[in-house]
Amino acid sequence: MFLTRTEYDRGVNTFSPEGRLFQVEYAIEAIKLGSTAIGLKTKEGVVLAVEKRITSTLLEPSSVEKIMEIDEHIGCAMSGLIADARTLVEHARVETQNHRFSYGEPMTVESTTQALCDLALRFGEGDEESMSRPFGVSLLIAGHDENGPSLYYTDPSGTFWQCNGKAIGSGSEGADSSLQEQYNKDLTLREAETIALSVLKQVMEEKVTPNNVDIAKVAPSYHLYTPAEVEAVIARL
Amino acid sequence: MFLTRTEYDRGVNTFSPEGRLFQVEYAIEAIKLGSTAIGLKTKEGVVLAVEKRITSTLLEPSSVEKIMEIDEHIGCAMSGLIADARTLVEHARVETQNHRFSYGEPMTVESTTQALCDLALRFGEGDEESMSRPFGVSLLIAGHDENGPSLYYTDPSGTFWQCNGKAIGSGSEGADSSLQEQYNKDLTLREAETIALSVLKQVMEEKVTPNNVDIAKVAPSYHLYTPAEVEAVIARL
Amino acid sequence: MFLTRTEYDRGVNTFSPEGRLFQVEYAIEAIKLGSTAIGLKTKEGVVLAVEKRITSTLLEPSSVEKIMEIDEHIGCAMSGLIADARTLVEHARVETQNHRFSYGEPMTVESTTQALCDLALRFGEGDEESMSRPFGVSLLIAGHDENGPSLYYTDPSGTFWQCNGKAIGSGSEGADSSLQEQYNKDLTLREAETIALSVLKQVMEEKVTPNNVDIAKVAPSYHLYTPAEVEAVIARL
Amino acid sequence: MFLTRTEYDRGVNTFSPEGRLFQVEYAIEAIKLGSTAIGLKTKEGVVLAVEKRITSTLLEPSSVEKIMEIDEHIGCAMSGLIADARTLVEHARVETQNHRFSYGEPMTVESTTQALCDLALRFGEGDEESMSRPFGVSLLIAGHDENGPSLYYTDPSGTFWQCNGKAIGSGSEGADSSLQEQYNKDLTLREAETIALSVLKQVMEEKVTPNNVDIAKVAPSYHLYTPAEVEAVIARL
Amino acid sequence: MFLTRTEYDRGVNTFSPEGRLFQVEYAIEAIKLGSTAIGLKTKEGVVLAVEKRITSTLLEPSSVEKIMEIDEHIGCAMSGLIADARTLVEHARVETQNHRFSYGEPMTVESTTQALCDLALRFGEGDEESMSRPFGVSLLIAGHDENGPSLYYTDPSGTFWQCNGKAIGSGSEGADSSLQEQYNKDLTLREAETIALSVLKQVMEEKVTPNNVDIAKVAPSYHLYTPAEVEAVIARL
Amino acid sequence: MFLTRTEYDRGVNTFSPEGRLFQVEYAIEAIKLGSTAIGLKTKEGVVLAVEKRITSTLLEPSSVEKIMEIDEHIGCAMSGLIADARTLVEHARVETQNHRFSYGEPMTVESTTQALCDLALRFGEGDEESMSRPFGVSLLIAGHDENGPSLYYTDPSGTFWQCNGKAIGSGSEGADSSLQEQYNKDLTLREAETIALSVLKQVMEEKVTPNNVDIAKVAPSYHLYTPAEVEAVIARL
Amino acid sequence: MFLTRTEYDRGVNTFSPEGRLFQVEYAIEAIKLGSTAIGLKTKEGVVLAVEKRITSTLLEPSSVEKIMEIDEHIGCAMSGLIADARTLVEHARVETQNHRFSYGEPMTVESTTQALCDLALRFGEGDEESMSRPFGVSLLIAGHDENGPSLYYTDPSGTFWQCNGKAIGSGSEGADSSLQEQYNKDLTLREAETIALSVLKQVMEEKVTPNNVDIAKVAPSYHLYTPAEVEAVIARL
Repeated sequence: MFLTRTEYDRGVNTFSPEGRLFQVEYAIEAIKLGSTAIGLKTKEGVVLAVEKRITSTLLEPSSVEKIMEIDEHIGCAMSGLIADARTLVEHARVETQNHRFSYGEPMTVESTTQALCDLALRFGEGDEESMSRPFGVSLLIAGHDENGPSLYYTDPSGTFWQCNGKAIGSGSEGADSSLQEQYNKDLTLREAETIALSVLKQVMEEKVTPNNVDIAKVAPSYHLYTPAEVEAVIARL
Repeated sequence: MFLTRTEYDRGVNTFSPEGRLFQVEYAIEAIKLGSTAIGLKTKEGVVLAVEKRITSTLLEPSSVEKIMEIDEHIGCAMSGLIADARTLVEHARVETQNHRFSYGEPMTVESTTQALCDLALRFGEGDEESMSRPFGVSLLIAGHDENGPSLYYTDPSGTFWQCNGKAIGSGSEGADSSLQEQYNKDLTLREAETIALSVLKQVMEEKVTPNNVDIAKVAPSYHLYTPAEVEAVIARL
Repeated sequence: MFLTRTEYDRGVNTFSPEGRLFQVEYAIEAIKLGSTAIGLKTKEGVVLAVEKRITSTLLEPSSVEKIMEIDEHIGCAMSGLIADARTLVEHARVETQNHRFSYGEPMTVESTTQALCDLALRFGEGDEESMSRPFGVSLLIAGHDENGPSLYYTDPSGTFWQCNGKAIGSGSEGADSSLQEQYNKDLTLREAETIALSVLKQVMEEKVTPNNVDIAKVAPSYHLYTPAEVEAVIARL
Repeated sequence: MFLTRTEYDRGVNTFSPEGRLFQVEYAIEAIKLGSTAIGLKTKEGVVLAVEKRITSTLLEPSSVEKIMEIDEHIGCAMSGLIADARTLVEHARVETQNHRFSYGEPMTVESTTQALCDLALRFGEGDEESMSRPFGVSLLIAGHDENGPSLYYTDPSGTFWQCNGKAIGSGSEGADSSLQEQYNKDLTLREAETIALSVLKQVMEEKVTPNNVDIAKVAPSYHLYTPAEVEAVIARL
Repeated sequence: MFLTRTEYDRGVNTFSPEGRLFQVEYAIEAIKLGSTAIGLKTKEGVVLAVEKRITSTLLEPSSVEKIMEIDEHIGCAMSGLIADARTLVEHARVETQNHRFSYGEPMTVESTTQALCDLALRFGEGDEESMSRPFGVSLLIAGHDENGPSLYYTDPSGTFWQCNGKAIGSGSEGADSSLQEQYNKDLTLREAETIALSVLKQVMEEKVTPNNVDIAKVAPSYHLYTPAEVEAVIARL
Repeated sequence: MFLTRTEYDRGVNTFSPEGRLFQVEYAIEAIKLGSTAIGLKTKEGVVLAVEKRITSTLLEPSSVEKIMEIDEHIGCAMSGLIADARTLVEHARVETQNHRFSYGEPMTVESTTQALCDLALRFGEGDEESMSRPFGVSLLIAGHDENGPSLYYTDPSGTFWQCNGKAIGSGSEGADSSLQEQYNKDLTLREAETIALSVLKQVMEEKVTPNNVDIAKVAPSYHLYTPAEVEAVIARL
Repeated sequence: MFLTRTEYDRGVNTFSPEGRLFQVEYAIEAIKLGSTAIGLKTKEGVVLAVEKRITSTLLEPSSVEKIMEIDEHIGCAMSGLIADARTLVEHARVETQNHRFSYGEPMTVESTTQALCDLALRFGEGDEESMSRPFGVSLLIAGHDENGPSLYYTDPSGTFWQCNGKAIGSGSEGADSSLQEQYNKDLTLREAETIALSVLKQVMEEKVTPNNVDIAKVAPSYHLYTPAEVEAVIARL
């Protein structure tokens, strides 16, 4: 009585008889192929940690950017298609700059996240800025505003959630369990760094080095760790 | 002599030989997958109660927003795709603000509901604001205006009805029967709170806690209950 | 040598080899699924009567609007998709208001009907106001202008006819026969009320009550009957 | 080696391997389903006569308009989809009015016909005024200008011919033969009335009455016969 | 390894694996179904002669226009879809008038032909003036300008050739052979009239009469022969 | 695992799994069906020679233009669809004229070639000037500018190469080999004329006459040879 | 449960169930068919070396441009469809010129690369500048700015990486291994020239000559080697 699942794939933004949107589900698959990223919130600030896949010794590790600054009080880690992520981040940068210009104050983390999701939701609409397919990327958005530190998680459907910890990408399942076990409200930022990196280490196939992971914090400003700072966290594991 | 049902799914907004619009029916399926929401009207005001699915202990319960304020005299509960609901609510907020600005008075609840449904009806039309598919969400719109309290229910086809009580989402069938049994015209708002939550409790698989339900009232202003206020209603069950 | 009927359904506005437009025929099917509506013209004015399907005791009967005012001298009853009907009625309201503003006099009933049908005819054309499919609704347009009372019937193809009596919706076949038998030129408005409601009663499965029928007249102004006025007509059956 | 005929139907305006345009041919089928209309030219003027299908005794015969005035010196009879014909006639009325306004003289009958056919030809082009399918209607355009009386016949392909007599619609085949037999150059207008109606009578299934036929003449002005005038012609048969 | 020929028909303007454009070839088929037209150039001017198919004795022969004036120094004969030809001729008339207005001199015959072909070439491009399919018509364009008399032949692909004689339409194959045999450079216009009509006579099924052929010349101005003038040429055969 | 080749033909501008663009390859097939054209560069200037297929003795040989002037210092020979070539040449003429107007100096041959290829590359893009399919034509562009004489070869993909000699069209394979054998850097223009025509003669089925070949040179201005000049080159073979 | 791989090829920019974008993967295939290009970074500057396929002795080697200047401090080598590469390079030239004009300073190499990738990413979006398919080309972008020398690698998905050495095109696999073996941080520019050309030599089927390779450096300005300079590097192998 229903079409088989496969016959729905071609309508970019159309419901299946069960009420599902397959292109969004397939985009989520693209993220499961991506490298793992982790976010962890503490009262002192938010920590982001990502795995970087360095396929050649000639590749410049710092050019594999999986953590990016959006505004001085907001950063994000990503998993999935990097070119898509760059488009979203660029959009968010323009939005936050416009907000500062118009209102003379930083944009809240939630408004920034909402702006990103508004763009993601409208795939297939033929708008000037939107894509003809869902953005194949998930973001962990770490920020600090008048409400203190916060961590948001977005998916290709344009939905977002606020959370205390979250893992995305190929190792997200195992990493999420570990995060739930190790999280408590009273973590220090230093403890969060250690937990984030140790969880990342569990799901990575290679040995952790300053070359194949990036760490950043927003506490209360965005800061991407130098190789030496990363080395120091590795040493604590 | 007719195409089988399945062959109609691809025309986004096309009649089947029996005069049906399948994409709308499939969008309604998306809502049946959603969490349950309940609305109940009394002479004193309207109560909204929703189930929140908290999939991880690291998720911030307050960021799973299934009840939202539209204007100070109107709120709504939703079931289905949350990103779609946010788009509709944002549209309604702009409409009600514009109305206040242009006419110096609040927009009536019915006009607000009509404005939402106008947008929902025009899916697949290629308008700037409309979607290429139906909005996969049902809303319970609670409000208070010169005609007193009122409760509206909208579906993905852009149709709306006024009612005294209504449940939407995965548990709506059982919840609707319970509401019809327990409703009478002379309910107090306090009684309505208790009925709404007890009906919600029946259809939820988990134990009811301030973390996994939200309650709001419009009486005559929108108010989302604090965890303590929710706890108090739970205690009365 | 011809395509089977089913293969034509997808071209929204394309002839079949026999010269038929299937989407229009399917839209007419949508109307056959709708509740029954009746119109009856007398020298004193026009009576409209509709069945309302009240699926829940919690539904507000007055919010199930199947008879609507277009202008003070024109009203209409509908059968089919209510959201579509609302769009048409809203279009007609704007047209009649514009006419009053531009010419300082009411729009004639025929011009109003023509304006509605112009919009209905152009489905699938990609115009700003037109739909991508036919409007799934039939209207009975009752009015009173310089030519006295008149009753028009429109269908999804954008065609209209003037008539003395007409039934639309699921019970239209039987109701039309009854109307033809009972109609004569010299009916009073009071007699027309009784005939319309008695014919409606024949085709309804439930007992007739002020909750599940609406009656209106244009004589010469539009007036929707109060529950008490409906009760009085029921009492005369 | 060729596609079967049926596979060409979907391209709205595309040649088949034999050089045919099927949508135009199918639109012509729509006209063969229509009621019969007849035009006959004399030196004194042109007569138009049409069959009207009155499906219910409650239908207002005068609202089944199959003969319409375009300008005071041009009228037309139609067969096929009435809503399509109304669009064409409305277009022609605007064109003739504009011509009068711009040039201070009536538009010639041929120019008016050409303007109608220009619109008909461009179906499927996405223009603002054109349709996405051929107009499913044939017109007999009767007029009187500086060249005396004239009669034109248009079909859905946007082609037109000038003729002395012509029948269109379901009974056109038999009627055309009769017209050719009975026509001569020296017919009076009165004789033409009788011939037109007697030919129409042959192809109608019902008895001819002032209710189910309409007659008009352009001699030199358009005039639609009153029921009494029609009755008088019937009496002469 | 290749698609069969039939599978290419639907792309309006797409190459087949052999490098062919099928819609253009099918349009050429439409012309092979058309009535025959002949053009013949002499030093004194150009003669055009066409067959007219008169399907009814009530049809006005002069309204079956297969030879049309473009400007006073250019005329054309056509075979194929007459409504398409009218669009092309109307386009050419505007172009030649604009040229006269802008430059104060007549447009050359070649420029006029090029302008027609520019429009014909761009079918399927979605331009305002172009068609969604090829124009189903061939033209023989006869003219006289500063270079003396000239005759051009256009086909649906938008290509044109200059020639001394050419036949198009259903009888073109036989007629072309006859023209090549009978042509010499020193023909008088009077001899050309006789040759053109005698060749046309060979390929027509009916007897040639002033009713079913048209003749025109451009020598140096366009002139369509009166029935008496046609009769005179027939008499010379 | 891959689609068969045939299934890719319909996407106008889409890669196959092997990374190929089939419509471009099919357009190249269209050129292989075309008449042969040859270009040969010397220090004194560039020679172009083309075969002309004269299908009827009534065709005017000079109207079969396969060599055209673009600007006074640039000419081109073509093979493939002549109507497509005319569009490209017309585009190049406008570009070179605009350049002269804007900068007061002739456009270089390379810039002119690039401008042509920019247009050719963008087929299927829906731009105003571009085509919905590749241009089915190859050009040999001969010119002379501040860098001396130059010869460019373009294909339907929008790619171009500079070369000393090149043959295109149905006889290109054999002709290219002959050109490579006979070419040396120190050819005089007169020798190049003889080589070009002798190579053309080899691949033509008919005897070479001033009627069925055209020759042109750019040395340093474009000049199309008169029949007498062509006859003189033939005499030297 | 899934569509086979082949059924996804037609949606230009749509995810497969596994989260893949096939058109991008096919475009990458187009690059594997291209000639090999190599980039190598040293502290003194960046070296680019490419293979040129010269298919005919009549082809002008310098017109086979596979290394192009973008700005005086940026050059790029390419593999894949040359016409696509020209479009990208032209876009980059405009961007860098605009930057110089607006800010009075050269654009950084990373910003230039990002601008190229923004255009590449948006294929299938219907924008004015973007293509309807991915650009079938990879670029090695060599530059020198305030951060010293840098080398970027872009692919058809719009993603880019910074690297110390990289090979693209048909021989890229073997060439990449060789580069990794021979690279060290302290290479001189002269050593890099030798390594780049020796690696290119390994993967080329023909003997290396100044005719079939091009070498360029950015150190700190773009310079394309003359045949003599290339000969000198060959001599060092």
